[in-house]
Order: sequence, then C-alpha cells, then structure tokens
Amino acid sequence: MAVYTEPTDEELEVLLRGWGLDGLRNFKGIAEGVQNSNFLVEAAQGRFIMTIYEKSVALEDLPFYLGLTERAANAGLPAARPIRTQEGQVVQMIRGKPTALCSFLDGVSSKRPPASHARAVGAALAQLHQALDGFDLARPNDLGPDNWADLWKGRSRHAEALEPGIASAIQGDLERFKADWPIDLPRGIIHADLFPDNVLFLGDAVSGLIDFYFACNDFLAYDVAVMLNAWCFEANGREFDLVKGRALISGYESVRPLSAAERAALPLLARGAALRFFLTRLVDWMTPMDGALVRKKDPRDYAGRLAFHRAARDASDYGAP
Amino acid sequence: MAVYTEPTDEELEVLLRGWGLDGLRNFKGIAEGVQNSNFLVEAAQGRFIMTIYEKSVALEDLPFYLGLTERAANAGLPAARPIRTQEGQVVQMIRGKPTALCSFLDGVSSKRPPASHARAVGAALAQLHQALDGFDLARPNDLGPDNWADLWKGRSRHAEALEPGIASAIQGDLERFKADWPIDLPRGIIHADLFPDNVLFLGDAVSGLIDFYFACNDFLAYDVAVMLNAWCFEANGREFDLVKGRALISGYESVRPLSAAERAALPLLARGAALRFFLTRLVDWMTPMDGALVRKKDPRDYAGRLAFHRAARDASDYGAP
Repeated sequence: MAVYTEPTDEELEVLLRGWGLDGLRNFKGIAEGVQNSNFLVEAAQGRFIMTIYEKSVALEDLPFYLGLTERAANAGLPAARPIRTQEGQVVQMIRGKPTALCSFLDGVSSKRPPASHARAVGAALAQLHQALDGFDLARPNDLGPDNWADLWKGRSRHAEALEPGIASAIQGDLERFKADWPIDLPRGIIHADLFPDNVLFLGDAVSGLIDFYFACNDFLAYDVAVMLNAWCFEANGREFDLVKGRALISGYESVRPLSAAERAALPLLARGAALRFFLTRLVDWMTPMDGALVRKKDPRDYAGRLAFHRAARDASDYGAP
Repeated sequence: MAVYTEPTDEELEVLLRGWGLDGLRNFKGIAEGVQNSNFLVEAAQGRFIMTIYEKSVALEDLPFYLGLTERAANAGLPAARPIRTQEGQVVQMIRGKPTALCSFLDGVSSKRPPASHARAVGAALAQLHQALDGFDLARPNDLGPDNWADLWKGRSRHAEALEPGIASAIQGDLERFKADWPIDLPRGIIHADLFPDNVLFLGDAVSGLIDFYFACNDFLAYDVAVMLNAWCFEANGREFDLVKGRALISGYESVRPLSAAERAALPLLARGAALRFFLTRLVDWMTPMDGALVRKKDPRDYAGRLAFHRAARDASDYGAP
C-alpha cells in the first residue's frame, strides 16, 4: 500500500518517451498493490497505470504475467493491455527495476460484493480460462499442494496460539490432501488470486480483471475454489453464503460447465485453497516486515473457512446444481 | 505516503451521496499526503480528491484550510474547490474523522523545477497573497520564530551528531532572531509550505496550488523566504541558484512588489525559514514513527542552506534587483 520507488523527473521522462507518451497531465502514486509501486499516468494518449516491480516479482516471470493480461485483453476481456515500446518491449528498466505501463481500467472494486457481482465474476473467470487456453508460457503453482507442508513446518505453535485446536486439524488436512488431492482434472492457466479487490465493476458489469501475479498452471476448478473462499463467505468467515456460491458457480458454468469430476472435487479444492491462504497469511503474520508498510491480513479469517470445507459433503454445499 | 483509513462500500456510498455524487467510476487510494488518507474519486459529476483527515489535523482548523483553498479558487487561482454537501457543509464525518471532497487539479509537480517554474510560482504566490487578503479566519504560525527555541531544546546533541558544528551556529541564529527578527512587515495569510511537491504544472503554467495545512497568518515576505529555500538551491543544498532566485522574486514582484523593508529582511527571513525546516525535520528524525509509514526527510538538507543564509549580505544574494 505504498510507493517504494519514486522516479526522478528525468527518469520519468525517459520512461514515457520509451512508450511514446507525451503531454503528461497527471502522475500520481497510488496505494494499490502491496509489493510494487504503482502510478496513475495521464498523457495526451490517455490514462495508464505504470508499475515499478520491486524485488518481489522476478524479472523472468514478467513476460508470463504481462503476456497473460495482454492475451486476455486481446480476447476482449476487461484486462489491462501492456503498452510496448517502439522496440516492442513490454518492460523498461529504472534503477535496475523492471517497469511496465498498462492501459487504465475504469471501475471500482467492492469490499462486500453482492450476488450479482459473484455471478458476473464467475462468468468472467470462465472466459479468462478460455482466453488463456493455449498460451505458450507456463509457470508452476509455487503455492500449491506440494508446498503446503513446507509452509506449515515450524508454524503449528503460532497457529495454535492464534486459533486453539487448529494444529491437529491442519495436520489432518495435509494427510487428506496427500491421499486424495485430484490428479487428473482439466488444467490450464489460472488467476489463482481473483479476490474482490482484483476485480473492478461498473454497475453490475465486470470492467477490470487485474493483478495476475499469482497466475500459474493448475486445475481450472481450483480457481473456482479460490473464488468460493474469497467471494462467498459472510464477514465472520465461518458461514457460507449459498446464494452467492450458486451465483458464482452458475456464472462460471454459463460459459464453461464443470465436469462431474471437477464438481466432485470442489469441497477438497476449496479446503486446499483455504489452507493456502491461511498458510501464506500465517507466514506474513509471523514475519517482521521492513518498515511495516503493509497491513497484514489475519490468518484466522481462513480458519472458519477451513472448518466449513472440512464439514462439506459435496458441491451442492457450495451451490452447485 | 499511504492510506490509513479505507472506507467500506457503505461508508463510501453515504459520503458520496452527501456530496451529491453518483455513477462512481473510479475510487483509488493515492500515495500523496503524508498524514492524511487521500483518494481519487471519479463520478458522473467529474473527478475529485477525497481526503480523510487523520488525527494530525485538528477538526477546528479545517474551516480555515478549506476556506482558504475555496477563496483562492473563487479568485481564479488554480486551487482545489471544496465540494459542499446539500446542507452547505464542507466536512462530513467517517468513523469520527472529518472528510472533505475537493475538485481535482490536473498537473504534475516537478522534483527539480526549472527557472521558468520558479518565475511562474513566484507570481502565483503573490496572487495567492492578494486573493487571501481580507479572509475572515486566522491561525497563528505555530512553527514560527516564537516556537523555534522550544523545538531546539534538548536536541543539540543529536543535531551535532548529524552535522558537527551546527549546535553553536543554531544557538547564534536563535540569538540573532531574538534581537533582529522583524516586527512590522506586511502581514497576511501565507501558505508557509509551498514546496515543489505542492505545486502542479501543465507545461510552464501553474495548474495547482495544494496542501494548505501549514497556512497561517505571518509576514508575506516569509512565504517568499520559504520558497527561496524550497525552490532555489542546488541538489546539494549548499549552493543557491541565483537564476532561479531572480526568477522567483521577479515573478512575485510582477504581481506584488516587495517593500524596501521586506527586501532588507529577506536574508534573515530565509535563515529563519531554513531553521524552521531544519528543526521540524530534526524532530521527525528523532521521533520513532508508528509503523514508519512515512519516509523521513534528512534535516541536513537544511544545514547547508542555513550556512548560506548566515553568510548572505543582502537581498541581492537571492537575486532581488
């Protein structure tokens, strides 16, 4: 939630010239983005978002992330389009940090999205899956089931202090995933982090799909499972909102119907997704931050979700028909 | 440089309705402003900046600050115009914090402004002084000469560690101010903090005068002295750029000529202004910050300026004719 790198006048001029922009009218650091520096840029050519990638994003992964959003935009989805330099590059460097410029997307993210939004974003997710099908780069999911045991190692005491009883339940989750995590569901590129703050709306229409920095190759249905966690729980994180779940799944299936196997796997995938967010939040919670520029998210928000998923019988508990 | 208070969807809706806005298209936290939360708001009615005042701004001072920028805007200056609610209020409350909405100003602040900008902003300052003449509210300068000895108390050892030799020089400054600080120069409302980051430009034209939160009643020429410090030194903070100084003063005098007494006082006023910024930066430097959300500014930037001012003979050293 901050600007870490502030370009000098000269650096900015060089960057803008590289993208062919002139007539700068506005240049403002924006609070969006937890780990990069983002700026609203308005020039004669229009409005854009400029991102300076701080160390958290690997330079070699940028062609993947930026290629995805470009491909989605080319397919007609409301995704930011990277602006290429005259030499065709999507990245310029400033002080050794890669920097990209993307088209600006109008719209507002809602913190407590209504069911109409869940339905629209479900459909947008399926369209995204279709648009990204056949993309020629790949990235493994480095926060997937193979990584959870490592993320958990050495943290059970802290988790237990936050949420008594959770340590043995998570041990059980990990054993269950080891035995039963699906191996043959339809795969593709997933967004993997399509939370409400990564979706912009104008009225009830999705106007922006942003922040592809967790995108990777994995089960398509896992992306649905992430969204069931992110969009369909009550504020207390313990009760599932069946109306929103139904809306999200039916929106998704209006574009790409889930297979029987995907549907059957949904409770386990949702449980895995909840564990993934519990664990990464727990790691952040336990990690002292330089300067504490980022407000940490409470891992306990996912403890209640995990409990719900452990008790779920089948996909109908999530609103699947 | 951050957003401290993030309104919920419902809180935002109530606020926007209060100002008569609808059709929200964009809502983004911006990194501007060190101590308040600022948001870019775009609605059917246009673009605005919303500010949530955190504890650093006293509620009772807001009618003064917002009244000033409104008066400047009404006089045709490029200042933000506060939007009033249907009931005529300039402030609405959110979670006990006052919140204001002002018109959005296009333009870009430059970090190393050229002489053409110094001239334009000098003229803008004089226009501002004229526009604010006769304003019916007042606020004392609580960072003026009467406060410097208190700000300095107990800090000489730290200052000396930062900049060897400065402690006795500052003691000398304080004695000199006590004896010779002017008492009868033309007074009025001054901005008191018109640094380059508080001025927006479109090309060479001033398009925005912002951040009135240090405005107060004091000598008009003191505002010129603040700007000589803020706009006319080389990056090393030790050498005065006479071309920019001449531009700034002649810009100011193209609107409001300085009196002989103001001109004679300029070196001492500039020395006082440099001490004011040295001292407040020193206080910040020594104060541990909650979460360190703000990047601290180095007080030493003002040590070199102070040395220059101590050696200045008269206003011609600043480019006055």
